[in-house]
Amino acid sequence: MEISVDAERLRADIERTGAFGAVETTEGHGRTVLAGTEPNRRAREYLCEQFDAAGLTTTVDAVGNVAGTWTPASADPDAAPVAVGSHLDSVPEGGIFDGPLGVYAGLEAVRALQDAGVEPTRPITVVSFTEEEGQRFADGLLGSSVAVGHRSVAEALALEDDDGVTLETALSEIGFRGEGLLAPSEWDAWFELHVEQDTVLETAGVPVGVVTTITGITHCEATLRGEANHAGATGMDDRTDALAAAAEFVSAVERAATEVVATDSESAVGTVGSLDVAPNATNVVPGTVTAGVDVRDVERESMERIVARARETLARLERERGVETSFERPFDLDPTPMSDRLRRAAHDAGAQAGLETLDLHSGAAHDTMHVADATDAALLFAPSRDGISHNPLEWTDWDDCAAATRVLAGALADAAGASRDGSQGGT
Amino acid sequence: MEISVDAERLRADIERTGAFGAVETTEGHGRTVLAGTEPNRRAREYLCEQFDAAGLTTTVDAVGNVAGTWTPASADPDAAPVAVGSHLDSVPEGGIFDGPLGVYAGLEAVRALQDAGVEPTRPITVVSFTEEEGQRFADGLLGSSVAVGHRSVAEALALEDDDGVTLETALSEIGFRGEGLLAPSEWDAWFELHVEQDTVLETAGVPVGVVTTITGITHCEATLRGEANHAGATGMDDRTDALAAAAEFVSAVERAATEVVATDSESAVGTVGSLDVAPNATNVVPGTVTAGVDVRDVERESMERIVARARETLARLERERGVETSFERPFDLDPTPMSDRLRRAAHDAGAQAGLETLDLHSGAAHDTMHVADATDAALLFAPSRDGISHNPLEWTDWDDCAAATRVLAGALADAAGASRDGSQGGT
Repeated sequence: MEISVDAERLRADIERTGAFGAVETTEGHGRTVLAGTEPNRRAREYLCEQFDAAGLTTTVDAVGNVAGTWTPASADPDAAPVAVGSHLDSVPEGGIFDGPLGVYAGLEAVRALQDAGVEPTRPITVVSFTEEEGQRFADGLLGSSVAVGHRSVAEALALEDDDGVTLETALSEIGFRGEGLLAPSEWDAWFELHVEQDTVLETAGVPVGVVTTITGITHCEATLRGEANHAGATGMDDRTDALAAAAEFVSAVERAATEVVATDSESAVGTVGSLDVAPNATNVVPGTVTAGVDVRDVERESMERIVARARETLARLERERGVETSFERPFDLDPTPMSDRLRRAAHDAGAQAGLETLDLHSGAAHDTMHVADATDAALLFAPSRDGISHNPLEWTDWDDCAAATRVLAGALADAAGASRDGSQGGT
Repeated sequence: MEISVDAERLRADIERTGAFGAVETTEGHGRTVLAGTEPNRRAREYLCEQFDAAGLTTTVDAVGNVAGTWTPASADPDAAPVAVGSHLDSVPEGGIFDGPLGVYAGLEAVRALQDAGVEPTRPITVVSFTEEEGQRFADGLLGSSVAVGHRSVAEALALEDDDGVTLETALSEIGFRGEGLLAPSEWDAWFELHVEQDTVLETAGVPVGVVTTITGITHCEATLRGEANHAGATGMDDRTDALAAAAEFVSAVERAATEVVATDSESAVGTVGSLDVAPNATNVVPGTVTAGVDVRDVERESMERIVARARETLARLERERGVETSFERPFDLDPTPMSDRLRRAAHDAGAQAGLETLDLHSGAAHDTMHVADATDAALLFAPSRDGISHNPLEWTDWDDCAAATRVLAGALADAAGASRDGSQGGT
């Protein structure tokens, strides 16, 4: 059996979806599709139309997660389904691939299996999760967090945007406040295809990545308090400069991450991404600085090594510079290894289709992090030109979209129990 | 002759002035008196009343500088006058001494000379300059900058506040848009008494400081451009982190200033007072950082040494880290040495009154910087408790106010040509 992806059908779906909330740009293709807005309604309705056209049964759950299920005659309708998907929302002025590629690759994979006469023994469900980007309600990965029970439906629906509109109201207004809840724990497997947002695949010239682990993430907030003072009237020996201390902290975090990369784990990163200085006037010695630190790795141990170095640095700055410091850790997610079984299925599907595949890790968070807490999960990557995402310049060649979708379809067929003999017999 | 300052009269004037624009505070005494506002009108009118009461002739010039001139019978009315003063405006929620002490010490000194029967040969003019703090119009030292010709009257009057109100309109509305212009170049000498805003006098236990030099000031703006990127998806080797580079810059400026202090000039300071990071999100590698640098010293050479080190550091960061940098110097004032003749007069007056005086430099800018471009100028300091200013906790003990005013009065008498024999004969 030859599974054949229709690259033009896939491209048409992504381009149509990219037109909802499209923004004017001089270069690239941008869209602004926040959860529960009019462009999001149109993107969701278009998806439901495509589910209908492909014979999938559509459901919408209590937090607006949309699913289309294909239950072929070959499948036991009560068997645990295999699920696949991603999200349709975007960041403000985001790209057209981040999210929609994964949803429509899932649908196109199902259509390709249908066209090829593949006979899975399990139903296949294509999913679009609500509010992955976290731009309007909460911090991201919202729909998947509710589906796996990390957050209650009531809590999610009560979330408010900056104008005090609740998620419940926003979903009702666009006609996507449904009932029940997707249940990833009842899925046999989950696949997500996403753009890489980095340059590993582009550099290697490989069209499909198979993620080994999604890195753990810790966000830390360090505050350094010195004494705000007149920059002219306060001698160098008389000052407790919070920014001069913070500069040492920034350097120490970078050095700690670089050393962990050199000695323990190539994938470790440590970033001071934000720094807020008060009073932040050229002629005033800074009194207080708050630093936002992002630490990630596929190994918890190397993450902790970087965090420990950050804390040691603060303790040293207290002793040596007389600043007062505090350290909080408001956000922490464990590294999430992907399923070996599903990764093998992806590599095998690549080999069968004559497409090279490459193991890599994901430094970015995805809904798959949550789903992996409930069932076997896999994350595939398609190349991102120059690694750019969350930007109208985000781009993945259409050939690469089709290649990654071909691998996804093969892996889905495998996971959904399409016997090789049976499928070969179907050609 | 014994010159005797009336400490209670001085205190009453400062307290009355501190009541205009007074702000509620749990501790200390705060006031908000921006130039050309209602509290500023009341402070100015009160000053004019006190000029009248002491027999001074009041003038208001085109930019609202107020002057009261005492022309005693002993003086040649055409002789170049000796001038003394400071300002009445404040920063928002500022203290009651910064400015008013200098104006009312000047007036009290004149009243003390009158009471003691001192017979100066020159008129004495007490001055309050407009908008010293630069909180509503322009950047500070406004009235004095116009008086010495650094800025035209028309330019000054056209300055707008945040609501688009011009200085001309604001002065007209409070009845202090006058005519002509104070002419410091026609003054024989100028004295200003100000609170120290630092702890040198407090630490030394000395009531009066005599400033040797007002430090030069350079403000520099350094911009470092790297590449904003996903903090998770961008490996440590693949990033150009503008904040990690800026941290080295901050450390280098501090180190350069500290080294210049150790080797060349104790009074040198270098401060990175502001740092603006973009996009400034915990999970994004910083793309651009702008740093505001303040460098001051009594020697131009040591200022330039610090600035050169800052520029060298940027060049090194371009080579080593691949950031692009730019460096601007939007503000630069030379160090301003005070008049030896007037400094001696101040020390002599202290010795005569049995009050200890101390040489020190001023790290802060004052109207005296501008006046010194036009005539001989001196700046005296009174102690600031804990060095605090621009704050309701700003405090100078009333005894110290009186002591510094006593020294000011003696120096004024000397500069205004009151012969020692004659004045001794007057007691």
